[in-house]
Amino acid sequence: MTLSKQEMSNQNNLLLTEPTLHYGIDKKVMQLFEASSKSSSIEGKMDMQVATLVDDFLGEINANTDIKLDCLVEKFSNSKAPVDPSTFESYFNYLANNVVAHSIHTSSPRFIGHMTSALPSFVGPLAKLMTAMNQNAVKIETAKALSFYEREALAMMHRLIYNFSDNFYTQYIQNSQSTLGILVSGGTVANITALWCARNASLGAKYGFSGVEKEGLAAALDFYGYKGAVIIGSDLMHYSFDKAADFLGIGTHSLIRVSTDCNNRVNIKELRQTVADCRAKKLHIIAIVGIAGTTDSGGVDSLKDIAEIAQDANVHFHVDAAWGGPLIFSEQHRHKLAGIEQADSVTIDGHKQLYLPMGIGMVFLRDPHLAKAIEKQASYTMREGSFDLGKRALEGSRPGMALFLHAGLNLIGLKGYEFLIDEGIRKTQYMADRIRAMPEFELLAEPDINLLIYRYIPESLRGLSSRNQLSETDNQLIDQLNERLQKNQRQAGRTFISRTTKKTTCFGTEISILALRAVIANPLTTEDDIDAVLNDQIHIAREWGMGNRE
Amino acid sequence: MTLSKQEMSNQNNLLLTEPTLHYGIDKKVMQLFEASSKSSSIEGKMDMQVATLVDDFLGEINANTDIKLDCLVEKFSNSKAPVDPSTFESYFNYLANNVVAHSIHTSSPRFIGHMTSALPSFVGPLAKLMTAMNQNAVKIETAKALSFYEREALAMMHRLIYNFSDNFYTQYIQNSQSTLGILVSGGTVANITALWCARNASLGAKYGFSGVEKEGLAAALDFYGYKGAVIIGSDLMHYSFDKAADFLGIGTHSLIRVSTDCNNRVNIKELRQTVADCRAKKLHIIAIVGIAGTTDSGGVDSLKDIAEIAQDANVHFHVDAAWGGPLIFSEQHRHKLAGIEQADSVTIDGHKQLYLPMGIGMVFLRDPHLAKAIEKQASYTMREGSFDLGKRALEGSRPGMALFLHAGLNLIGLKGYEFLIDEGIRKTQYMADRIRAMPEFELLAEPDINLLIYRYIPESLRGLSSRNQLSETDNQLIDQLNERLQKNQRQAGRTFISRTTKKTTCFGTEISILALRAVIANPLTTEDDIDAVLNDQIHIAREWGMGNRE
Repeated sequence: MTLSKQEMSNQNNLLLTEPTLHYGIDKKVMQLFEASSKSSSIEGKMDMQVATLVDDFLGEINANTDIKLDCLVEKFSNSKAPVDPSTFESYFNYLANNVVAHSIHTSSPRFIGHMTSALPSFVGPLAKLMTAMNQNAVKIETAKALSFYEREALAMMHRLIYNFSDNFYTQYIQNSQSTLGILVSGGTVANITALWCARNASLGAKYGFSGVEKEGLAAALDFYGYKGAVIIGSDLMHYSFDKAADFLGIGTHSLIRVSTDCNNRVNIKELRQTVADCRAKKLHIIAIVGIAGTTDSGGVDSLKDIAEIAQDANVHFHVDAAWGGPLIFSEQHRHKLAGIEQADSVTIDGHKQLYLPMGIGMVFLRDPHLAKAIEKQASYTMREGSFDLGKRALEGSRPGMALFLHAGLNLIGLKGYEFLIDEGIRKTQYMADRIRAMPEFELLAEPDINLLIYRYIPESLRGLSSRNQLSETDNQLIDQLNERLQKNQRQAGRTFISRTTKKTTCFGTEISILALRAVIANPLTTEDDIDAVLNDQIHIAREWGMGNRE
Repeated sequence: MTLSKQEMSNQNNLLLTEPTLHYGIDKKVMQLFEASSKSSSIEGKMDMQVATLVDDFLGEINANTDIKLDCLVEKFSNSKAPVDPSTFESYFNYLANNVVAHSIHTSSPRFIGHMTSALPSFVGPLAKLMTAMNQNAVKIETAKALSFYEREALAMMHRLIYNFSDNFYTQYIQNSQSTLGILVSGGTVANITALWCARNASLGAKYGFSGVEKEGLAAALDFYGYKGAVIIGSDLMHYSFDKAADFLGIGTHSLIRVSTDCNNRVNIKELRQTVADCRAKKLHIIAIVGIAGTTDSGGVDSLKDIAEIAQDANVHFHVDAAWGGPLIFSEQHRHKLAGIEQADSVTIDGHKQLYLPMGIGMVFLRDPHLAKAIEKQASYTMREGSFDLGKRALEGSRPGMALFLHAGLNLIGLKGYEFLIDEGIRKTQYMADRIRAMPEFELLAEPDINLLIYRYIPESLRGLSSRNQLSETDNQLIDQLNERLQKNQRQAGRTFISRTTKKTTCFGTEISILALRAVIANPLTTEDDIDAVLNDQIHIAREWGMGNRE
């Protein structure tokens, strides 16, 4: 039988739409999906392989692996995706040897240089549950109970910050027209969201003008008679504010960074003056930012004073409490956040001092209607009046991370969080005391909370240093030593401390010096671990002859 | 012995810093953290409880639960965080009865109304591994191997889209000065990031002007001599573009939505004219957007034609392939994306047709240096020249979601993804055929890929409908019926289809009609399930007497 061209083409089309063309692949793939409907042997085997990996990984005491980056560059240089599926056994082995083996032991009690720490044991099982449930928190139709559950968890946090009346929470906790808080992927998105709300609300629709949201920034400034728009905070503002200023169209030059005092708190007098200057120059102030725990050194601004300035100027007051927010749990340390309850918006990160997995940022809003300023809708979802959480958010589809937040509040509880916060600060004081007592180190600021900056001083300069007589050249030498020390320590991998820069006044001129930076948040970190980290640094410095330089 | 006030205060301070003050809480909390270092009995028990929950949840065939939203409002109305920690047994029970029980069965083969589906079984174990590793992908110091591993996975995807030479990938795959792709939390952030790059690159530093990033949008437009700035795409652009236009300071009125044809593709002639008009009006075009799979109905724009228009106008060409990107895996359907390789940036979502968990968006960049336009640095991290991924990203701290992407490419493989894509489209054609054959339904557009819009027609109007003689009043009646049908179906919970609106021309005037919207992506969905969904709709319509209206 011969076929016409047309018939052949038809037959080809038929063949192409037949699933059997996928020679054997169909079975392999379907097996992966069918397994997900029950704890079958495949998933059970995967679980076992992963459990071994996890145990080995979490059992490590070293902070780091000593593999060189060049070596990793080589390991991961394949740009061709595999044609056929691998077996999970071989892929998980590959993962174990190439990725897990050379990952950072963020849970190590001697990894005390960044804001990443050991997590409570419930996060693993909940991660599995969240993934299996695969809810999309953007809308009710893909996240039913979760939408209300998320609002409840956010209301609990809101209440800790603002402590409004029972009546207030009854009215707003599940009111679809209101937003007490927005769950986002991280502190950066939280800060950006807060400033987005502030910009849109302060340059809103009025007298026939449709507002900045619709008409854009240039038209809004024009309509309101401003020459420009600014955001004001301290020079220790997180880099997410640079992103926000860039993003929102005001430009990073319009992010005004007021200087800080020796303990890393914004200079209130200068801040007040800056606000007055901006008003005199007809610059619209989108927001004044207070910081509760700078990323650099943990400094907490005097939020009460900033609140007063913002209130006097009738300007949005945002608090970046991504790190320090959870001090609210501590009876002993809560007073450091005094004034936060006057903030129009507050950022807190769940993956920092709430000890939850990466990917949980939150922004809380004093006015439950503020987020209306950023509301968006679509015809296939997020209709007005609905309970869809995605209506007032930067992000669209997002996972049910509320599971971790709500669980943390319940499984750790207010008292548990209080204990964790108190312990971190107590151990930081211990470390500060040790540093003060050791001739090898110099403490660079009194720690407000649980971040600490210090540096190593070579033996030959300790005399000058203790008499505050270091020259600029001496400081440069110390900077070089400390940078080398931090890099060598990181590379050796036994312990870990990060580094940053700190402005300091030296012989009348302000100079920037390199600082070693400790973050004491891991509940597993003991005083012995802190000693071990400091001794490791002394050991490394001696090994390199840094102690006896010159 | 009596103490002076000073001594008492000192003693108080001492007492306050003693951890023993936290009566018994310390042990409870530390137990949670210590457990995470090995598969102890606590975590083992949690795992077992979660495994049962997951099995029950994934075993459900119904799409939904029939609980009323009012009931959920009541269940989640507690704004007071618990003081003491709960036991995990009681909390997990609470979760089971209140959250899991009333969550959407997104993996149900009869939940075919949104872009959320069943996932392969490896995502659960990997979620656990990712959480245990707790890497923060923002920087090398908290994500060592993972940073390189993520770049490798993104390069594999980049190569599928752009297919540059071996040389190109050797040069850029692990070059810290370049960015082939950015892993973000979702498609919205991916789209916003692409337009942010486009805005900053097109209004960059020049002749003493520092660029829009630093000086802001008003100054940039002024410097470049533009009267405004716009983004152009079809009227089916995702709502994330509204967010982007608002955010980036141009205002949503400057998001120009060109009309689409009856198959939901942008009208190319009108697009070309719009571009010319904008240039004549001295409006800066930040980007032209092409859509590969509209969220509404899966329409794929003619990317080749748009690429040509963008190239002629020397304008950034962005493709939103959040949904449709993975067609690239299919030999049979890849041609629908022809022209995507000319895009300056492409968005693809991992949590859509790569069958990965929520929270994986990606933006790919043709020019490995484009992301320089959004680069930011900080003193404590993300230093220039480093491999820190956070330097060029909207987000800061973020989880190691690359684990899922890399695993998906390896465990499903190119052929596995091809099978999944081909199957989805094949089954959509089956559904379209069924709808055409059933008098109860009207197909509203020929499906380009695996989204399908249709509507139910009451018996009394079927004659008019088939002769295309429905009046506007008839259409309004049909809209009401379909809205009620969709809501009742959702509430009953056996099956699920979403709804949207579709513009159509009726007696010469364009009207908006309500459309039922199916998304056929779940590999577990069979032809029988599709029949069951359609029959459920007929059943509901009959029950309500919709079939015999009038």
